[in-house]
Amino acid sequence: MALKPFVEVNSDSHFSIHNLPYGIFKHGGDAITTPRPGVAIGDYVLDLSAIHSAGLFDGPLLSSSDCFHQANLNKFLELGRPAWKEARATLQKLLSSAEPALQNNASLRKKALLPMGEVEMLLPIAIGDYTDFFSSMHHAKNCGLIFRGPENPINPNWFHLPIAYHGRASSIVISGTDIVRPRGQGHPSGNSPPYFGASRKLDFELEMAAVVGPGNELGKPIDVNEAADHIFGVVLMNDWSARDIQAWEYVPLGPFLGKSFGTTISPWIVTLDALEPFACDAPNQIPQPLPYLAEKVSKNYDISLEVRVKPAGQEESFTVTRSNFNHLYWTLTQQLAHHTVNGCNLRPGDLLGTGTISGPEPESYGCLFELTWNGTKDLSLGKTSRKFLEDGDEVIISGCCKGNGYNVGFGTCSGKIIPYLP
Amino acid sequence: MALKPFVEVNSDSHFSIHNLPYGIFKHGGDAITTPRPGVAIGDYVLDLSAIHSAGLFDGPLLSSSDCFHQANLNKFLELGRPAWKEARATLQKLLSSAEPALQNNASLRKKALLPMGEVEMLLPIAIGDYTDFFSSMHHAKNCGLIFRGPENPINPNWFHLPIAYHGRASSIVISGTDIVRPRGQGHPSGNSPPYFGASRKLDFELEMAAVVGPGNELGKPIDVNEAADHIFGVVLMNDWSARDIQAWEYVPLGPFLGKSFGTTISPWIVTLDALEPFACDAPNQIPQPLPYLAEKVSKNYDISLEVRVKPAGQEESFTVTRSNFNHLYWTLTQQLAHHTVNGCNLRPGDLLGTGTISGPEPESYGCLFELTWNGTKDLSLGKTSRKFLEDGDEVIISGCCKGNGYNVGFGTCSGKIIPYLP
Repeated sequence: MALKPFVEVNSDSHFSIHNLPYGIFKHGGDAITTPRPGVAIGDYVLDLSAIHSAGLFDGPLLSSSDCFHQANLNKFLELGRPAWKEARATLQKLLSSAEPALQNNASLRKKALLPMGEVEMLLPIAIGDYTDFFSSMHHAKNCGLIFRGPENPINPNWFHLPIAYHGRASSIVISGTDIVRPRGQGHPSGNSPPYFGASRKLDFELEMAAVVGPGNELGKPIDVNEAADHIFGVVLMNDWSARDIQAWEYVPLGPFLGKSFGTTISPWIVTLDALEPFACDAPNQIPQPLPYLAEKVSKNYDISLEVRVKPAGQEESFTVTRSNFNHLYWTLTQQLAHHTVNGCNLRPGDLLGTGTISGPEPESYGCLFELTWNGTKDLSLGKTSRKFLEDGDEVIISGCCKGNGYNVGFGTCSGKIIPYLP
Repeated sequence: MALKPFVEVNSDSHFSIHNLPYGIFKHGGDAITTPRPGVAIGDYVLDLSAIHSAGLFDGPLLSSSDCFHQANLNKFLELGRPAWKEARATLQKLLSSAEPALQNNASLRKKALLPMGEVEMLLPIAIGDYTDFFSSMHHAKNCGLIFRGPENPINPNWFHLPIAYHGRASSIVISGTDIVRPRGQGHPSGNSPPYFGASRKLDFELEMAAVVGPGNELGKPIDVNEAADHIFGVVLMNDWSARDIQAWEYVPLGPFLGKSFGTTISPWIVTLDALEPFACDAPNQIPQPLPYLAEKVSKNYDISLEVRVKPAGQEESFTVTRSNFNHLYWTLTQQLAHHTVNGCNLRPGDLLGTGTISGPEPESYGCLFELTWNGTKDLSLGKTSRKFLEDGDEVIISGCCKGNGYNVGFGTCSGKIIPYLP
């Protein structure tokens, strides 16, 4: 733990000097409100456009690049891992207590190091395509049990390939954005006709999502052992779901309007480099994956995840789930390699969701659908309870890796349900 | 038929003065090769940037807009129907034999009216999201019969809502682009393990797709009776499909890698205004749609569609399907209204595919999966035959509305299969 920043960072802060996650912000404190890239450090945001303009990105790849003078991170993502490593080394040095360049430059510090409370976070990337996987075995099993019953709850293909579907990119919003309760068709059961109205089974889904770096040309798959070079980092994600709409529409082409009304991501992208100390073994996969999915090193990450719900009209929030990223069966790199094996091209800024991250225990289930077993039991929230989300309910996801005396955390990913008003 | 252009247009041309479809082109004939908007007229492309620079877009909405100085049509699409009508009126007048402004200006004519053979067509729009519907009852029925058998081939939800799934936007390519045969997992049957390799069941799908205009904000649905104002026009589309990959992966989340390796669209967007004379009644829908899908006027369009296959190594192509856009059960406006009813936002340039357009007769089936009944019979192509597509096969879709002495056509949408080479 020799690395010590000159900026004060509380020991419980998510944003230690070992983290340095990237986001896009606007600063309300002055007239200049152009969106620009920053990294989080303690309670501050370091403005990368100011650091670049001051000539402090002095490495060969970044000194003459304009990637930090953009309204999204896509151009930086496209540069790939060598540039990401150069940026990380430059920033860790610049923020360390041993380095005077920023520390002793009061006017630059004032301009570049902004209190987090003064900035507004925006979507960090322009998302060309968003894909959502289905990589937690516990979630797949619970969904199968509820929808189809105890005989073969997991479909045979699940153990051979990372199942996924294309999601809606336009409705991905930044943490803090209200979510309008969707309307749609539901179907009670049997031969009754479908009804139309506000969803009665509105749910959250605890997910994380990988942010794609350089990507590939159409027709040129990415090898699974090179896939990590195409993953810049990871965010928290809430894949809001209307279970009644989803259940009625999803056969045979998959989820559509049950998901496309909104997906929330956290503002800070934690890089794979920052997560590396928290890498752990991925689960043993049986049957053995086909060669194109067989990795030399198969990694998961030990990221503690938590979902809290703050019920409408209350000040207190209640933890409803504690899970961990390492419950995933398919790794991020397997997901990415599978995605491209048919030649499909990924572009910088594409988002690959993991699917709901449920663990084996009921307390670790990643959505209300599982926690209340499709509304057949109540989930207690202090003096009240829920089967599904009500208007005014707020859902707050957080994630954090605990190091020795420091954290590499994701902050929060939150959203509140508001009613549809014509 | 009083409208007569000063440019010669053959009577069998798709691009009469009643059509004027929009595309994006590069001109190889001079040094300036910036992509820019054009309309097709006979064997020429009219360069809209040149027409605008010459001050000939003199209407109130377009004279000071820079929408024709862009590398895609998105900015023009965002302006909405009043601007589209203004552009159409301006261009029909400018191209008419009664109007001297362009006709008698030799230097502008030379600059702005380019032989079609000299230009390269590009993707006309930046596609944020691509959605594919499933709106032909005959196609839905045939797929159900093949996959699930004769009991209830069409799932009950199909008659209540326009079923759709999110497709992959990154791999949409312009007509003429080669398609690399995808690799992936297939599964023969029973308890045998899946295999990996080049797809053995590569197929085309005859589709059309609507191009979205202004669109809507997240949380603000578009009323079905206002949906037409959000549809700029229509293109031909070939939604290439790998049936073996699709069959193994699609339960429960829908098609993914079986589709995402490539989707081809035609270069010219034919506007709804140009299609208006070919509007016809949509089919009677039983059961009656829910109120949010009930239209005051329910329109289809009489667009003759044809698929030809040119087998590898042969000069001759063979017609394998004759279908019509009016075989669709759900209208474009119902599709769009349904898409937004949950609050999902559409953006200018989004693409809404119709799904495979099959008619009731075997000769009108829109894909090989139906034409060869999943490879159980041969489709004759002159001296050879096919169950599915082979490397070197080219598929050419065309579409045309026949007016009284003129056409409103789509040109062609073509692509050739090439093998995957590592």
